[in-house]
Amino acid sequence: MMQDGILAEALRGGRVESRHEGRAVVVDAEGRVVWTLGAGEAAVFPRSTVKALLAIPFVETGAADRLGATVEELALSCASHDGEPEHERVGASLLARAGRDVTCLECGVHWPTSDAAARALAAQGREPTALHNNCSGKHGAMICTACDQGLDPAGYVYPEHPVQKAATEVLASLTGARHDEVNRGVDGCSMPTYAIPLRALARGFARFGAGVHMSADRAAAARRLREAVAAAPFMVAGTHRFDTKLMAHFGPRVFSKMGAEGVMVAALPELGLGIALKAADGANRAPEVALAALLLRFGASLWSDADRVMLAALAEKPLRNWNGMPVGTLRAAPALSEESFA
Amino acid sequence: MMQDGILAEALRGGRVESRHEGRAVVVDAEGRVVWTLGAGEAAVFPRSTVKALLAIPFVETGAADRLGATVEELALSCASHDGEPEHERVGASLLARAGRDVTCLECGVHWPTSDAAARALAAQGREPTALHNNCSGKHGAMICTACDQGLDPAGYVYPEHPVQKAATEVLASLTGARHDEVNRGVDGCSMPTYAIPLRALARGFARFGAGVHMSADRAAAARRLREAVAAAPFMVAGTHRFDTKLMAHFGPRVFSKMGAEGVMVAALPELGLGIALKAADGANRAPEVALAALLLRFGASLWSDADRVMLAALAEKPLRNWNGMPVGTLRAAPALSEESFA
Repeated sequence: MMQDGILAEALRGGRVESRHEGRAVVVDAEGRVVWTLGAGEAAVFPRSTVKALLAIPFVETGAADRLGATVEELALSCASHDGEPEHERVGASLLARAGRDVTCLECGVHWPTSDAAARALAAQGREPTALHNNCSGKHGAMICTACDQGLDPAGYVYPEHPVQKAATEVLASLTGARHDEVNRGVDGCSMPTYAIPLRALARGFARFGAGVHMSADRAAAARRLREAVAAAPFMVAGTHRFDTKLMAHFGPRVFSKMGAEGVMVAALPELGLGIALKAADGANRAPEVALAALLLRFGASLWSDADRVMLAALAEKPLRNWNGMPVGTLRAAPALSEESFA
Repeated sequence: MMQDGILAEALRGGRVESRHEGRAVVVDAEGRVVWTLGAGEAAVFPRSTVKALLAIPFVETGAADRLGATVEELALSCASHDGEPEHERVGASLLARAGRDVTCLECGVHWPTSDAAARALAAQGREPTALHNNCSGKHGAMICTACDQGLDPAGYVYPEHPVQKAATEVLASLTGARHDEVNRGVDGCSMPTYAIPLRALARGFARFGAGVHMSADRAAAARRLREAVAAAPFMVAGTHRFDTKLMAHFGPRVFSKMGAEGVMVAALPELGLGIALKAADGANRAPEVALAALLLRFGASLWSDADRVMLAALAEKPLRNWNGMPVGTLRAAPALSEESFA
C-alpha cells in the first residue's frame, strides 16, 4: 500500500517468511514530525494505547488522592494487564476505594490473556471474572472518579456519561484531534474509541511525556501516572510482556503502551518526543520490535551500553521451535535503524 | 508491496481498522493458472499445509494397512490438531500400531493450541506431552512407516532419514518444485520445510485432490487420505476450527488445510482445482475468510443454497467484544468475490 512502509520481518531458513507493513511517526510536543514511515496523517483507532490519558481525570480531579489510591492502583488504571493474581487483587482493591466491587464493571469477562495465568485459574477450579479483563483498571478508575463526584457510575462505558465525556475531553485536548460520533467506534471493553491521525496520537504522547500544552494540574496528574507506571510496571501488563520489560528497565525514562490491532505508543520525556505505530495487519509482534529499534535510534543520546544491548535484544529476537531450536528471526525492518537522506 | 493484493479486512466503526495483504492462486492439475492475486511465483514455506502429502507414503507403502491404521488415525496423520483429549488418544493409538509410544516423538511439547483444552488439562493437574503437539499425527505416521520397513525411526525429523526423504520426494513430485538444501528451512516441529512457489503448492493440491499426475498406487493413497479427513474432520483440527468446520460440512468435496504464518491450501476434486494462499504478515484469520470467498466463487457450479450460505458466513464474520456486542467485521477483500477483467 502506498501509505505504508515495512515495520518488521519474520525470517526462516535465511528468507523473509512474513513481513509486517505499517506506519510510524515520531513527533515533538508541538506536533512537528521528526521522522515518519508511511502516512502519518492516516487515521487509527488507538485502542488501549490511550489508557493513561483516560486515567488523567482520576488524578486531576483529586479523586485518586481522596480515595487513597495506591501506586499499584494508579498503574493498573493505565493497564492492559494479563490477568495474573496480582492484577485481580489490585483491581478489586481499586474498586473498594469507592466502596464498589466487580459487579460494577461493565467491561465484560475474558480468561486471562496470559495462558499460564488462565491455566492456573482453571487448575484452581475457578472461572474468570471481570477482574481478569485486561481493562479492569481503566474501568475501575472511571468508576472511582464517578463515585468521588457523587455520580452514579452505571453506564460509565457510554459516550454520554459525564466521566466518559471528561476522559474524551482529555484525549481531544492532548491529541488535538476531533473525538465525536463521526469517528467513533466501540472497543473490546465497550468503551468508545476514536479514529484519529497517527501523528495526533504521537503528539498526545509527546505532550503526556513532557507535561506540556496542558494546565499545571493536568501536567502533575500526567506525571503521577508516569511515575506510577514506572514504579509498578508489572501492573501495566505482566510477566514476559513487552511494556513491562521495557519500563522495568527504563523506569520513567520511557513510557510505552500497546493497543489491540497492532497499535503502539511511546514517550521519551527527556527529549519531549512521542512515538506512535500501527501495524497495518493488526499484529502485535511487529510494533514491539519496531518500537525497540526506534527507541534505540531516537533515544541514542540517552542510553548506556546496557540500555543499548537491552533494546537491541528487543528489536531482533530468535524464533525457536518446539524443541527450543532457533529456526528463524523476528526483527525490526532494517530501514527503521538506518539514517536515511529520504 | 507490488507483489501482493489484499486478502482480508477488519472493520470497526464502519472503517477499515486493519487489512491483510497477501497472495492467492487457483490452478488446475496441469498447473495452469486459473486466477491469481499478487505474484503466484513468489516462494512460500508451506508449513503444515502439506501434511496430507507427507502422509502419502504411510498409505502408499502399505504400512497403514499392514498396521491396521484406522480412519481417525489416517486423518490425524494429516492434522494440525488442537490437542483435545480425542487427539491425544488417537495419536497414542497410532503409535501403538507400530508398538511405539510418545517417547518416540521428536516434535517437541506444547500446550494444546485450544485454550479450552489447555485449561482442561491444567484443571486435571496434568502437563502436556508430545501427544498434545499439533503435529503428533504427522510424526506418528512417519514413525509407523519407518517401523513397518524395519528401519530405526530415530532421527526421522532430519532430512537424511529415509522416511523423510521419501516424504520429500512426494512433495517434489506433486508440486514440481525443487526440494533441497538450497530452499530448506526448519519447521516448528523440527521437520524440514521447503520454500516453493505458491503456484507450485497450489498445483500439488490440484493433483492431490484429483489424483492425477501420479501412479495409480499414489492416487489410491491420496484418495484414502482425502476420504479419511472427510470422514473424521475433527481429527484434522478440532472444535471451532476452520478446517474442521469446512470439511464437516463439505465432506470429500472440499479439502482444506491451514499452515503457520498465514498459509492455506484447498482442493476442489470435482473441478480438478487447487488453491493456495499466503497472508504476507502471517496471520491465520486472513486466509480463512479469503479461502471461503474463493471457494464460493470458484466452486459456484457445485454449491447448493445451504453451501453458499455456509461459505458466505465463513467469508464475512462479525467481530464481537467482551460483552458480545458486535463492534466490527472481519471479511474477505471485496475483490476476491468480484469477477474482474484484469
